[in-house]
Amino acid sequence: MIKIVVDCYGGDLSPQANIEGAVKAINDNKELYLILVGKEEEIKNELAKYTYNKEQIEIVNATEVIDCNESPTAAIKQKTDSSMVKAYDLLKNNEDLAGMITLGSTGAMLAGAVLKIGRVKGVKRPALCPIVPTMDGGVVAVCDSGANVDCDPVWLEQFAIMGNMYMKYGYNIEKPRVALLNIGTEEEKGDMLRKETYQLLKNNPSINFVGNMESRDFISGNYDLVVCDGFAGNVLLKSTEGTALELLKLIKKAFLKNAKTKLGALMLKKEVYGIKDMMNYNNYPGAILLGVNKLIVKSHGGGKASSVYHSINLIARLQENKIVEKIKEELYKPAE
Amino acid sequence: MIKIVVDCYGGDLSPQANIEGAVKAINDNKELYLILVGKEEEIKNELAKYTYNKEQIEIVNATEVIDCNESPTAAIKQKTDSSMVKAYDLLKNNEDLAGMITLGSTGAMLAGAVLKIGRVKGVKRPALCPIVPTMDGGVVAVCDSGANVDCDPVWLEQFAIMGNMYMKYGYNIEKPRVALLNIGTEEEKGDMLRKETYQLLKNNPSINFVGNMESRDFISGNYDLVVCDGFAGNVLLKSTEGTALELLKLIKKAFLKNAKTKLGALMLKKEVYGIKDMMNYNNYPGAILLGVNKLIVKSHGGGKASSVYHSINLIARLQENKIVEKIKEELYKPAE
Repeated sequence: MIKIVVDCYGGDLSPQANIEGAVKAINDNKELYLILVGKEEEIKNELAKYTYNKEQIEIVNATEVIDCNESPTAAIKQKTDSSMVKAYDLLKNNEDLAGMITLGSTGAMLAGAVLKIGRVKGVKRPALCPIVPTMDGGVVAVCDSGANVDCDPVWLEQFAIMGNMYMKYGYNIEKPRVALLNIGTEEEKGDMLRKETYQLLKNNPSINFVGNMESRDFISGNYDLVVCDGFAGNVLLKSTEGTALELLKLIKKAFLKNAKTKLGALMLKKEVYGIKDMMNYNNYPGAILLGVNKLIVKSHGGGKASSVYHSINLIARLQENKIVEKIKEELYKPAE
Repeated sequence: MIKIVVDCYGGDLSPQANIEGAVKAINDNKELYLILVGKEEEIKNELAKYTYNKEQIEIVNATEVIDCNESPTAAIKQKTDSSMVKAYDLLKNNEDLAGMITLGSTGAMLAGAVLKIGRVKGVKRPALCPIVPTMDGGVVAVCDSGANVDCDPVWLEQFAIMGNMYMKYGYNIEKPRVALLNIGTEEEKGDMLRKETYQLLKNNPSINFVGNMESRDFISGNYDLVVCDGFAGNVLLKSTEGTALELLKLIKKAFLKNAKTKLGALMLKKEVYGIKDMMNYNNYPGAILLGVNKLIVKSHGGGKASSVYHSINLIARLQENKIVEKIKEELYKPAE
């Protein structure tokens, strides 16, 4: 049995999306056990809409919700009856719980992970690692994407090691192609952080380091994991997302311009829908926080049931592969 | 008379594109005088194809070309008969020459500017400042975009001051909206560099600082100038460019899928062509190097005649507005 906590609040479509995704996950997998955290009555009313095995779901009541605009640390410390804090307390106090999925505040999620769960022994800094769809139908991960802004080369090396395991066990990629985000592909390119990190990655036998990657190749499908500090990772992710959204908006506008373009758009509906679908975050799991003692996954704040469903399945896959233990084995080197 | 040097080699379509663009510029503007640098016979043969006022063009022979794969500093020092080095020598030795346009190696262009031309008094570091089209039909500039990777807050403040003047005099924007690239919009966000720079920009009365900008809003049209270190600027620019190109490739593929989609595409041809055209760098000037004693503009290596034409006009506009002198007045504070 794999036991996962579902924070049922904090998303734009919560708790409906969270609960629908949770039900879908247990209906797919008899080995899952989910603890839904949030307003008990509301959750019960939602659950009543579905058919599912009641022995695979448990509800834990929590009356508050952490807002995205709250100070993360203060919220974790003070909102003790919020769904996220209760979810973290459950994880903290029950060794057999694998992890948590939330659609709520990323800041509170990071603060809670550090305050309540703690780092894996040997890990310098936990890192947030989302995936992005690539043009060949695959995905590419970015580690770190914003949890750590001022970074040390050794941290980046750890991000590479953890991200490598993540892509291996979470996405079944035998030898993930690991790249360092840089401003050119040549070895000597970049700032001091990149130059030092390049040498660490190049000399690390546990990863398949393929060299520097320029941001223009991010979604090409030529890489499985991009290593960077959280500042650059955040710029990379959000500009990719922003450009794609703005361009799709322009195209939509062009399609709706007049009767002729509308007819043309109708003929292309299936194909253009396919492109939009490929880029829809609801078809993928959320971002994992690597390097803490539980499997914490943050799905998009606007996430639908399918994003919750994919995130639950991701946690289950990673738990089966004991990735937390593997990270510890790799990074914790007790004095001999 | 505004005198500008045109490096006629180094681009994919050189020297044809350079010469065609130069002729177009003088045919538009009787006040321009262009010095075309490169293989004299080839330039003469190209010029023979056009009708233009011969008193506005001069040729200076240069037999070599600097390649993009050469070491920039070595190339500038050793290839003394290359079109770029000869162009720089002309600029250095003739006070009345306003600047240079090149499609060649960015690295060599930067090295040459420092070695041959030198910084404006008071400028800590020159910065490369390209523009990108925005979704509302305007442009947004990025300063720095790659000339300086490890930056100081004071350098970023200077990038803001120089970029502000550039947008004002190059693009006729009365009060450019200046933003700091960051991972969130709140004042306290970001790494140490961003936190310190934020305070400098906020307290600088000479610019209209509108706060932090997340990379997802880069091409929204809400900003005129984005200030950042060259590493982040490079990541921002190339991921925006890469995402747009990959997405257009996907759309093209969808359009060509079958007879029905091809018919649909035909009905949308004009509109989709309009989007592609809006994003085509050939319709805009290249990137300016701000903070050196001449107006140096680098157009895209694959640039066509129109990109050369727009870059020449940009240099002319900036020269008329004496932007180099204005930067010096603003940044050079001799001990009183």
